[in-house]
Amino acid sequence: MARVNVDTPAAGKNAIAAEKNRRLFRENHVFVMNMIGSPGCGKTSILEYTAENSNVRCAAIVGDVKTALDADRILDRNMPAYPIETGGGCHLTAVQIGSMLTRIDLCKTDCLFIENVGNLVCPSVFDLGEDIKTGVLSVPEGDEKVRKYPELFSRTDVVFINKTDLLPHCEYDMEKIERDCRTARPGVKIFKVSATKGLGFEDWARYLEMNRKEQQNGK
Amino acid sequence: MARVNVDTPAAGKNAIAAEKNRRLFRENHVFVMNMIGSPGCGKTSILEYTAENSNVRCAAIVGDVKTALDADRILDRNMPAYPIETGGGCHLTAVQIGSMLTRIDLCKTDCLFIENVGNLVCPSVFDLGEDIKTGVLSVPEGDEKVRKYPELFSRTDVVFINKTDLLPHCEYDMEKIERDCRTARPGVKIFKVSATKGLGFEDWARYLEMNRKEQQNGK
Repeated sequence: MARVNVDTPAAGKNAIAAEKNRRLFRENHVFVMNMIGSPGCGKTSILEYTAENSNVRCAAIVGDVKTALDADRILDRNMPAYPIETGGGCHLTAVQIGSMLTRIDLCKTDCLFIENVGNLVCPSVFDLGEDIKTGVLSVPEGDEKVRKYPELFSRTDVVFINKTDLLPHCEYDMEKIERDCRTARPGVKIFKVSATKGLGFEDWARYLEMNRKEQQNGK
Repeated sequence: MARVNVDTPAAGKNAIAAEKNRRLFRENHVFVMNMIGSPGCGKTSILEYTAENSNVRCAAIVGDVKTALDADRILDRNMPAYPIETGGGCHLTAVQIGSMLTRIDLCKTDCLFIENVGNLVCPSVFDLGEDIKTGVLSVPEGDEKVRKYPELFSRTDVVFINKTDLLPHCEYDMEKIERDCRTARPGVKIFKVSATKGLGFEDWARYLEMNRKEQQNGK
């Protein structure tokens, strides 16, 4: 139990379900981001900001151990949001995502966010059929998280560094964390934002728009 | 894999090892706190502060997925600290703790801190033989964590609310989170602190000293 074993029957079942999800996403030209970060790093706040400030047709599947609080916050901003309560589960599985997809109008969705359970460990090794994994860091967590969770950050094509408004009040070496991200995953895109203050989202808006165009060209 | 199963052979092995640890702690009159919180909530900073400001004879076992960075920080403050790298493991096990205990001078230790892997889910259901579970929250994570992780907070006899120095810069309802803690675990002790600024530790110092006396009376 000390290490996530990806060779178990359950992991095999996950891989099959992930492939099925991926086919469905490709057929419907939906760009899918699996968002992984600590509890309270601001995954939901980033989606709230995106819901209010983007014309890209988005939807979200939101995993939490308990409550649908985060999904409700996103719904309040008029982005379709579908909660999955995992009970004791510390990560989402491809099977859970697959069973939710029947409820989502994929034809009318350009970008699907999967907000994973707040956890930097197990979510990193469970493929959900996504296009990319997205790491969400936040300034008050400290600047050593990339080194401490190399499994995750070796797989993230996008990293948000959130809560930049707290930089004047925290010891945080931004250059170091950016360097660590690029070492772990060369070519990673880094968005430095404050979701609650609406700061730094220009590059993110361009990135989303670029992906929307690519998806819509296919539709 | 979606839910931690406590009825597996591995879980049975953990329960046996936890009992063995507990016996050893009692024989040596060591008070043991299993500290559980998100990555970056400040578990290590609390131990750094304690190392520098307490006369209680403490030691720490420090779990991390990768690196011994946190154990090194505590060692630098002259508290004996023993790192456990879990590899991909998202929580510490009683077997891992047991194998570390041979290296610790329990006769000369009044309080042993076990800093678990940063994660609010799986560590909450793995008994390590500790006296109490201690939840560590931090202000910038937001004030809904107790409701979202009820499994953990129904078992915590002590809760730290750290990074109170950031209260002026975050939306955080302190009364609500305290109420949630007390609802989840009646009688819970709550310490509101800022570890990096050294604020609010008076009650914690008294609590540690009280426990030291109890342990030393037994030795």
